Amino acid sequence: MQKKMVENKHLNSQFSLNSETKISVIDYDAKKFQEKEVKEIEECFHFKHTPSISWINVSGINQTEVIKQLDEHFGLHPLVLEDIKNLEQRPKIEDFGNYIYIAIRALHCNETTKEICSEQISIILGKNFVITFQTGKQKDIFEPIREKIRKNKGKIRKMQSDYLVYRIIDRIIEAYFDILENFGYEIEFLEEQLISNPNINTLGMLHNLKKEMIQIRRSIWPLREIIGSLERGESSLVKRTTRVYLRDIYYHTVQLVDNIETSRDILSEMIDVYLSSINNKTNEIMKVLTIIATIFMPLTFLAGMYGMNFKYFPEIYWKYGYLLFWIIVIVVVVSMLFYFKRKKWV
Amino acid sequence: MQKKMVENKHLNSQFSLNSETKISVIDYDAKKFQEKEVKEIEECFHFKHTPSISWINVSGINQTEVIKQLDEHFGLHPLVLEDIKNLEQRPKIEDFGNYIYIAIRALHCNETTKEICSEQISIILGKNFVITFQTGKQKDIFEPIREKIRKNKGKIRKMQSDYLVYRIIDRIIEAYFDILENFGYEIEFLEEQLISNPNINTLGMLHNLKKEMIQIRRSIWPLREIIGSLERGESSLVKRTTRVYLRDIYYHTVQLVDNIETSRDILSEMIDVYLSSINNKTNEIMKVLTIIATIFMPLTFLAGMYGMNFKYFPEIYWKYGYLLFWIIVIVVVVSMLFYFKRKKWV
Amino acid sequence: MQKKMVENKHLNSQFSLNSETKISVIDYDAKKFQEKEVKEIEECFHFKHTPSISWINVSGINQTEVIKQLDEHFGLHPLVLEDIKNLEQRPKIEDFGNYIYIAIRALHCNETTKEICSEQISIILGKNFVITFQTGKQKDIFEPIREKIRKNKGKIRKMQSDYLVYRIIDRIIEAYFDILENFGYEIEFLEEQLISNPNINTLGMLHNLKKEMIQIRRSIWPLREIIGSLERGESSLVKRTTRVYLRDIYYHTVQLVDNIETSRDILSEMIDVYLSSINNKTNEIMKVLTIIATIFMPLTFLAGMYGMNFKYFPEIYWKYGYLLFWIIVIVVVVSMLFYFKRKKWV
Amino acid sequence: MQKKMVENKHLNSQFSLNSETKISVIDYDAKKFQEKEVKEIEECFHFKHTPSISWINVSGINQTEVIKQLDEHFGLHPLVLEDIKNLEQRPKIEDFGNYIYIAIRALHCNETTKEICSEQISIILGKNFVITFQTGKQKDIFEPIREKIRKNKGKIRKMQSDYLVYRIIDRIIEAYFDILENFGYEIEFLEEQLISNPNINTLGMLHNLKKEMIQIRRSIWPLREIIGSLERGESSLVKRTTRVYLRDIYYHTVQLVDNIETSRDILSEMIDVYLSSINNKTNEIMKVLTIIATIFMPLTFLAGMYGMNFKYFPEIYWKYGYLLFWIIVIVVVVSMLFYFKRKKWV
Amino acid sequence: MQKKMVENKHLNSQFSLNSETKISVIDYDAKKFQEKEVKEIEECFHFKHTPSISWINVSGINQTEVIKQLDEHFGLHPLVLEDIKNLEQRPKIEDFGNYIYIAIRALHCNETTKEICSEQISIILGKNFVITFQTGKQKDIFEPIREKIRKNKGKIRKMQSDYLVYRIIDRIIEAYFDILENFGYEIEFLEEQLISNPNINTLGMLHNLKKEMIQIRRSIWPLREIIGSLERGESSLVKRTTRVYLRDIYYHTVQLVDNIETSRDILSEMIDVYLSSINNKTNEIMKVLTIIATIFMPLTFLAGMYGMNFKYFPEIYWKYGYLLFWIIVIVVVVSMLFYFKRKKWV
Repeated sequence: MQKKMVENKHLNSQFSLNSETKISVIDYDAKKFQEKEVKEIEECFHFKHTPSISWINVSGINQTEVIKQLDEHFGLHPLVLEDIKNLEQRPKIEDFGNYIYIAIRALHCNETTKEICSEQISIILGKNFVITFQTGKQKDIFEPIREKIRKNKGKIRKMQSDYLVYRIIDRIIEAYFDILENFGYEIEFLEEQLISNPNINTLGMLHNLKKEMIQIRRSIWPLREIIGSLERGESSLVKRTTRVYLRDIYYHTVQLVDNIETSRDILSEMIDVYLSSINNKTNEIMKVLTIIATIFMPLTFLAGMYGMNFKYFPEIYWKYGYLLFWIIVIVVVVSMLFYFKRKKWV
Repeated sequence: MQKKMVENKHLNSQFSLNSETKISVIDYDAKKFQEKEVKEIEECFHFKHTPSISWINVSGINQTEVIKQLDEHFGLHPLVLEDIKNLEQRPKIEDFGNYIYIAIRALHCNETTKEICSEQISIILGKNFVITFQTGKQKDIFEPIREKIRKNKGKIRKMQSDYLVYRIIDRIIEAYFDILENFGYEIEFLEEQLISNPNINTLGMLHNLKKEMIQIRRSIWPLREIIGSLERGESSLVKRTTRVYLRDIYYHTVQLVDNIETSRDILSEMIDVYLSSINNKTNEIMKVLTIIATIFMPLTFLAGMYGMNFKYFPEIYWKYGYLLFWIIVIVVVVSMLFYFKRKKWV
Repeated sequence: MQKKMVENKHLNSQFSLNSETKISVIDYDAKKFQEKEVKEIEECFHFKHTPSISWINVSGINQTEVIKQLDEHFGLHPLVLEDIKNLEQRPKIEDFGNYIYIAIRALHCNETTKEICSEQISIILGKNFVITFQTGKQKDIFEPIREKIRKNKGKIRKMQSDYLVYRIIDRIIEAYFDILENFGYEIEFLEEQLISNPNINTLGMLHNLKKEMIQIRRSIWPLREIIGSLERGESSLVKRTTRVYLRDIYYHTVQLVDNIETSRDILSEMIDVYLSSINNKTNEIMKVLTIIATIFMPLTFLAGMYGMNFKYFPEIYWKYGYLLFWIIVIVVVVSMLFYFKRKKWV
Repeated sequence: MQKKMVENKHLNSQFSLNSETKISVIDYDAKKFQEKEVKEIEECFHFKHTPSISWINVSGINQTEVIKQLDEHFGLHPLVLEDIKNLEQRPKIEDFGNYIYIAIRALHCNETTKEICSEQISIILGKNFVITFQTGKQKDIFEPIREKIRKNKGKIRKMQSDYLVYRIIDRIIEAYFDILENFGYEIEFLEEQLISNPNINTLGMLHNLKKEMIQIRRSIWPLREIIGSLERGESSLVKRTTRVYLRDIYYHTVQLVDNIETSRDILSEMIDVYLSSINNKTNEIMKVLTIIATIFMPLTFLAGMYGMNFKYFPEIYWKYGYLLFWIIVIVVVVSMLFYFKRKKWV
Repeated sequence: MQKKMVENKHLNSQFSLNSETKISVIDYDAKKFQEKEVKEIEECFHFKHTPSISWINVSGINQTEVIKQLDEHFGLHPLVLEDIKNLEQRPKIEDFGNYIYIAIRALHCNETTKEICSEQISIILGKNFVITFQTGKQKDIFEPIREKIRKNKGKIRKMQSDYLVYRIIDRIIEAYFDILENFGYEIEFLEEQLISNPNINTLGMLHNLKKEMIQIRRSIWPLREIIGSLERGESSLVKRTTRVYLRDIYYHTVQLVDNIETSRDILSEMIDVYLSSINNKTNEIMKVLTIIATIFMPLTFLAGMYGMNFKYFPEIYWKYGYLLFWIIVIVVVVSMLFYFKRKKWV
């Protein structure tokens, strides 16, 4: 079933159905290490039978044929094939007994445009192999892990395939923290702008940020369930020693959810502050208008009245008429100001 | 019990109580395949006893008698009969031991009017038969499944009746995704309009979209429970091999719920943006009004004053009176502009 | 404990403590049927010992003595007596082992005033008897059930006392659906009014409807728990065959809750639409005011200025002074309109 | 640990650390009854060993020494001592095996000021004794219970200590219902005021009521848990016969929560109604202002224009100039009114 | 994994990676007591093997080497080392069998700036040792506990290491109550200001307070889970006698959550009150403006009209023209006032 999705542009996942497929294999155990790029998918089939850990990374998933061959050779369920191809899936985990399928969304922040893109990563965890599928359009975020394996840093070479999967997920979560850190900076920047020079653009940016958070949240929430079920799960593929690491990244995802919810609350609060200040300003402006109008309208009427051309118009012939006019003006202004004072408008 | 319902017009379910009833039967197993339209309901009774899978589709449910006969022949509970006839039911699942009753709402998007209609589909899953009931007013959405059975595509002919039900529900969910995809396009369109030329119509469309989402959500939420309980349920009618497929569409419904909730959040956000911008505009307009009034009201008073007809009015006889007038005008204007500048109104 | 309640007027429950008590008894089994009105409560005591189902309906509960006698004769707990007398209870169910006490709120819609009243119905389900208590101020809604028993329609005469209770609750729920259907019509009516001629009354009606929903919701939510616990409960009074019927009305209450929540969401949405449109209108009005003021204030100043009476006032002696005045006027008007055009105000 | 609390003034709990301590003891069983006020706490120690139920009520808890002696004699945990002294606790229940400690908040409504005060009541339920601690600043609400014991009304003398605790809690809950009833009256009063003469004070009172509800809710919510855990708890101190009574007051607390939530929803609704009406009024006022300004501003300009003193001003010498002026005035007014009519402003 | 965090400035946790590390050891049991500051971490290793309780407090965690040595000597998991170093963790608890790791956030209120800072405290609870890690930038809040141990006050010297951890957490929670108490005072202050002299600053302070609460809530919520799981947990490190104390502080955290949620509700309510009053004031101001404009605009037009210079202008030559003018003025004013009276604007 070809699933079509409601996805807004901001997190546009890269459909890379016509990019080239690159397949790289890393085969390692505590003692030996082998890495190669393969052209033909068949080249990596024999790794299934080696006791060492084999990590097959498929980047660019346009060649359905390649995936199909992999699937068949490693005895995967047809639904997994479909899930790998469907790039707009909700993150999920599925335990098929002798292997576990994990779909996860990785976030990338475009360095230049500052746009955030999401990409689906499919992971298959078998007894002594791990297969990962990337779209290939984004920067490969697994390079640091490969580096660790190559240089035999940390305990990765001593551990099983489940630890490698932990490392992969950990790497993806780290990228989330980077994105959220950027959000944090943006929120701080907007907070300062809100104090120094609030305008309609600040509001627009606040709303945009909030909308992006709504979108990102969709990728983070299921992550928590996935790692939680991986850690608690009864699969024999996940060793007891690895569980403690999974519990660790589980807490990280809880923290991610926490951060994003707090940030949303704070953004809502900031938008409220802006709107309140607009309301307040309108009130201020109305006061000025009303004060001016209330003072000058009666005066203008008065001036207009003494400008009338009636033939029988006694006041204008009085000697102190003009003086009287000014006395009335001053009385009106003073009493109005007094009235505004009492109303606390000035 | 004849249930009457609170249902708004937008998702008006088609009461087709006077349309004609069409009954079609498909009988298949891995090797043979038979399809026919029957006039008399009795013609399909013998299919109950064949070991092959029989799919009886009743379209148009006005002939209560037909449903009753079917019910009686297949030994269904009287409540099931009522549920099939009640076209405004909340989606539900009921396990009666030797058969399972499922009521589901299918969504159709009218190609021309773009209106969304919902229709109740009743499904009865028995050991080697499946009975489906449609209102018959909408396009038959099961044709692709029939095509698969006819051409023996995929594994449908090799599987049992539960797999057929999975295929039917999967087809209905696919239609939901199509609808949501359309919503996605509409949201994008409105988002662009909100930036380029926001007006009261944009707001109306946003509110309409949100209202439609509230309605659709009612059909989607129970779907999740239904498929979840079908998958976890202990009915012997649902085979282990089918469960993995049910789990797959279970995740699809979770994704549907996710999408609809995210879309609602985004719509709310967009409505807020529009309202904020209106508030801001009113503020802008008030500023212009106040600036104009504050500048010209004192000046008009001044002009009116020098237009008074007092006989004893020294200033108007001064040689530089008119010049003085202009000096006062300029001083007033400049000081006002200075005041507005400080208030950041200009 | 005499409980006093916070209850708003809209759903004013009828305190009928001084209406007359009417006691009617129906005694039936599959073969025989007997119905009578009794004057003295003692007359219905012997029904307790008959193997046939006895339905004692007490309407008007002012005669505490009557209730007390019934309670004592049927061996009810003192708390049940209090619960029956307390007419403002939250719907609840209590299993006392050899009988079950159920308190439920029935809604009545006054035909003439369209006001909704609620009434407490107390039901006691025993092994072969059912006692119901009504306030007696409202129309007796159980008549259709009696009719069914009298005419031996359906399977009610063949079933036990638990089926009778199912029928009674089913009847009450049906009334809820009627009320909600009316709400549906009102919402549709208001929706049309909102489009054609929105005014402050529409808003008031929307708010009233929402307030009524908040009140009704209080009666519906506990209903779900009650029926759920009756169906799942382990009481031997509820037979397996009846459970499927209870599950059916359980789904109806879920649907009721669903409908009322969706209606509330839609009402909130409609109120938002109205308020948005008010905001928009104010903005429109402000624009008109500002445009008029911005055009005519400078012009009025100009006219006022040339009305000044300065002796040394060169312009007014110019031959083309008046023409110049008009040229200035036109330039001001045109440039203002141009400014408004650019601001998209006209 | 001396806990300090965030508590707003409205529900100011009475710190009575310098009031006098009064200790009263009631000792009873089905046959005998004894009541006395004691000066020295030692006087009531021997009641611990009598098989009859002893109710020791300590009012005014300033004499820490007294509490300490009681605690030690009855073998209470040091934490209980601290909890009794800490008057700002969240309601809680703690089962210590051979006794149960319950802290609850009682609400009092000051008759004259209509202010609501809350007071902490600590209850210790032992095998054959009950100790209660009051602050002593409020009216003693337990008098009706003592009266029942003295006059041997109801079954209280025949029951154990757990029934006495039930009675005490029941008495406290009754006070809550009284408070909520008062709220109900206030809401009704405000609802009428909102229709007849809404003003800023009405709004203030609505907000105050809502704030008081937020505060009271804090006392009610934990109550539900407390009674629920007392009823379901496995303590041998709570007899089976008492559980049915506890279940009864459990339902009362559920009803309290229900009432307070519904009241809050209704208050929010009423505040919305008020704000909507303010919005509407502002809109109405703006219309009047705009209509007046739009009509008279052009006219004033016209009049000002014909008051100009240009020497070369042909119109003013025309015979029908003045008539023409009036014709223009009428045309302007009529066309403006026509425009407003079309805009539905008049 | 070096985690970077979204943390707003208000609760800026002090990165003290270059402050000096101070290590202090307290070794005690019921009879003996020993306290010393150590320079070299090796000096406190032998305490691990003493049967007495050893409390090692590390303040300033810049010397990764020190932590590493401690970790290795006490056999801690590498992840614990990372968690101690990562100062922006979400509070968490992790049971490693023979020791428990707890990360908690302590709040400090800067005496002078009134700013609230948060600091991560890491606690390791072993069989007969407790290790705590502080950043060292804040005031050491554990001094009162040390004092209790030194002077053998209370039962701390008689209890095990789990009781010491209880005391440490209790101390941290106490600080939370202090902070919330300050919030309470601020809310009261703002409430008074809101009544006496509401202005935009009051609103700003309300919003700031609410934002701070959102941040603090993040530290408090997980606290509840931590203490709950510590109390319910099955670790043999936590003795039965200590559980009752843990349950006590568990209730304190519930109360903290309660207080913070109630305070947030009240703050929201207060902000609503302020905004309503602004809305109301704008309405009031608009009324004044409209009344003034509606009265004086027609009058000014009238005066302007009689100032026109038409040659043929009959009225101005009438004897009672001027009198008539005043009659018209009075009629206009009175009828306008009457109109406003009916509209309830004055």
